[in-house]
Amino acid sequence: MKIAVDVMGFENPVFEAVSACEKLVKKYSELEIILVGDESKILKSLKSKERIEIIDTKVFINQSDEVFTAIRKKDSSMSLAIDQVVNKKADAVVSAGSTACYVALTYSKLGLIKNISKPAFTPLVPTAKGIPLVWSDVGANKVCDENDLVCFAKLASVASEVILDIKEPKVALLNIGTEEYKGLDFIVEANKILKNEKKINYIGYLESREILFGRTNVLVSDGFTGNIALKALEGTFKAVANQMKRDFKKPSGWLGALFSLNVVRKLKKTFDYKNNAGAIVLGLNGLAVKTHGSADEQQFISTIELTIKCIKDDLMGKIKKIKF
Amino acid sequence: MKIAVDVMGFENPVFEAVSACEKLVKKYSELEIILVGDESKILKSLKSKERIEIIDTKVFINQSDEVFTAIRKKDSSMSLAIDQVVNKKADAVVSAGSTACYVALTYSKLGLIKNISKPAFTPLVPTAKGIPLVWSDVGANKVCDENDLVCFAKLASVASEVILDIKEPKVALLNIGTEEYKGLDFIVEANKILKNEKKINYIGYLESREILFGRTNVLVSDGFTGNIALKALEGTFKAVANQMKRDFKKPSGWLGALFSLNVVRKLKKTFDYKNNAGAIVLGLNGLAVKTHGSADEQQFISTIELTIKCIKDDLMGKIKKIKF
Repeated sequence: MKIAVDVMGFENPVFEAVSACEKLVKKYSELEIILVGDESKILKSLKSKERIEIIDTKVFINQSDEVFTAIRKKDSSMSLAIDQVVNKKADAVVSAGSTACYVALTYSKLGLIKNISKPAFTPLVPTAKGIPLVWSDVGANKVCDENDLVCFAKLASVASEVILDIKEPKVALLNIGTEEYKGLDFIVEANKILKNEKKINYIGYLESREILFGRTNVLVSDGFTGNIALKALEGTFKAVANQMKRDFKKPSGWLGALFSLNVVRKLKKTFDYKNNAGAIVLGLNGLAVKTHGSADEQQFISTIELTIKCIKDDLMGKIKKIKF
Repeated sequence: MKIAVDVMGFENPVFEAVSACEKLVKKYSELEIILVGDESKILKSLKSKERIEIIDTKVFINQSDEVFTAIRKKDSSMSLAIDQVVNKKADAVVSAGSTACYVALTYSKLGLIKNISKPAFTPLVPTAKGIPLVWSDVGANKVCDENDLVCFAKLASVASEVILDIKEPKVALLNIGTEEYKGLDFIVEANKILKNEKKINYIGYLESREILFGRTNVLVSDGFTGNIALKALEGTFKAVANQMKRDFKKPSGWLGALFSLNVVRKLKKTFDYKNNAGAIVLGLNGLAVKTHGSADEQQFISTIELTIKCIKDDLMGKIKKIKF
C-alpha cells in the first residue's frame, strides 16, 4: 500500500507532515509513503528513509492561490503528489493545501467515474454522539440538481459504510423543514428519488439545527448550502470559545476556569473541527484525501489512518460497483 | 399609540403575554393595547383594564398548523389581531404564533409596499459584540433574485437605523467567500448593484463563519440560505449547551459548574436566541412584529418595546420614503 503525501502549502512547517508519515510507516508494516516537497526540508525532519521515497520540488500552492494559479504551477508539490495516483504509483494522495485548488486539481487530473457529473467534497464532521457525520458536498459545486444530490447520497453512503464500519448508514437531505413540500425544487425532487432508492437507507430531510446531534450518518447538500451551514457551525464554536476564554480570564472567572477545565477540554475535543479526520473528494477515479490547512502531526496521522482504512477496505472498488 | 397583541397559539400560557402588556401599559403612558384571544383566560390574568381592550376569540393557530389551515381559520386570534392594523385600529401587531402562518397572513392581509415583490422575515440576532444583527430574510422566501436581495438590503438598512439607533449601518451579503466572483449568480449580481447604491453603507460579502462577530449591522440573504445558516447557529448553541450541562452534572464537573456559573450564564445571555427582541416582517403596508414561539413575559416585553420604538421613530414612514 503506497500513499503520496503533499508536505507543503499548509500553515505549519513541513516537519508536522514528515514526522506523522515516519510514525505511521513504523506502525503499519505494509505502508509505503512518497513524500512530495522540498527535499532539503524533508531530510532535516526525516530520521529513517525506510519505506519512504522523496519527490523533490520547491514549488508549492499557497492557501491563498486562485485555482488558475494552481493549475499553472505544474511542478507544485500538490500537483506532483496527485500525479502519483494518476500514474498508478500510489493508491491515494493526501494534502493539507488549499481546498479549492485541491478539488480542482484532483478533478482535472483524476477525472470523474462513469455517469457522475460532479465531485463531492466530503468532510467527516464531529457530532455530539461521538460518531462523525459524512457530509457531501460542502463546497465543490455551488450549483447542483437533483441527480447530483442523488449521486452524492450514493457515494457518501458507501464511503460512510467503509469509514464508520457500519451497515446501512442513515442518509438525510439538508433542508429548511421536514415537510415533504418544503425547500428548493431540486431538493424536493431529490427527496422523491431517494425515497425509491432501495440501496440507500434514506431517512428524509434534516434541518440544519439538527446537524450536530448524530441523527444521521450521511448528510447530503449542494455545495453552496453545505458550505454556508458548515461555516455557520464553525463560526458559532469560535464565538463561544472566544467568549469563554475572555470571561475565564477575568478575576471572577479564573477559579471557574480551573475547575471546569475538563468540561471545556471535552467540549473542545468533541466538536473540534481541526481534529477531525479530514475530507475525501468523492466521485473521482482515485482516492484523494484532504486534511486541514492548519494540520499538525496528530491531524496528519488521523487523516493518513483514514486513508489507510479506505485503501484496506477497498473504498474505490466499492464505489465503482455503485449503479449511478 | 395602539398595539394589537395576539395572546394565543404559542407554547406558554396566555398569562405570559397578558402580564407583559399590563406592565408595559403602566410603563408607557401613551400606550394602548388590544389583547386578542380567549377573553375568559385573559380576564383571569388581567388585574386592570386601563388602556386595554379585549377582542374575544377562542380560535387560534397552532404552531404546527399549515398555512392553508391558518388562512381558513378566519376568526383566529392571529388573524383578528392583524385585522386591527389593516383597519387602522392599531399601529402595529405582535404575535408569538407560527412564523410561517404569521408571514403568510400578514402578507395577504396587509399587502406589500409599492415596487417590492416579497416580504422579508427579519430577526434581530444576538452577536458577540452585544449589538444585535438585523438579518433579512431568514425564511419568508425560499427563491430570490438579485432585485429581492437589494430590496431586503434597503429595508433592513432603514430598520436597523431605527432599531439600533445608528447612522449609516453596515450592510453585508451572506456568501461562501469574500472574492467578487464567488457564490451563486444572483448573489454576485446583487453585489454589483449594492456597490453602486449610494444610500447604503455596503461592505461586501460576509461568510457564515463571521455572522456572530458583529462585523456588520445588517445581513442580507435569500430566505433559504438565511434559514439554513440561522438554524445552524441555533443548533450549535444547543449542542454546546447540552454537552456542558451533561458534563457539569458529573461528580468531576460540579465544582467547575459552581465556579463557572457566571461565565456560562453570560454565554447564555449573550447568545440566547430566546431572549432576543424578536423579528419584523419587513416590506408590508403595516408594522408586523413577531416574538419567539416559546416567549415568556420578559420576551413579550422586549418585543413590544421594540415595536414601541419602531412606532415612535416612525419606521413605517421611513420605509415608505425608500426608493425601490
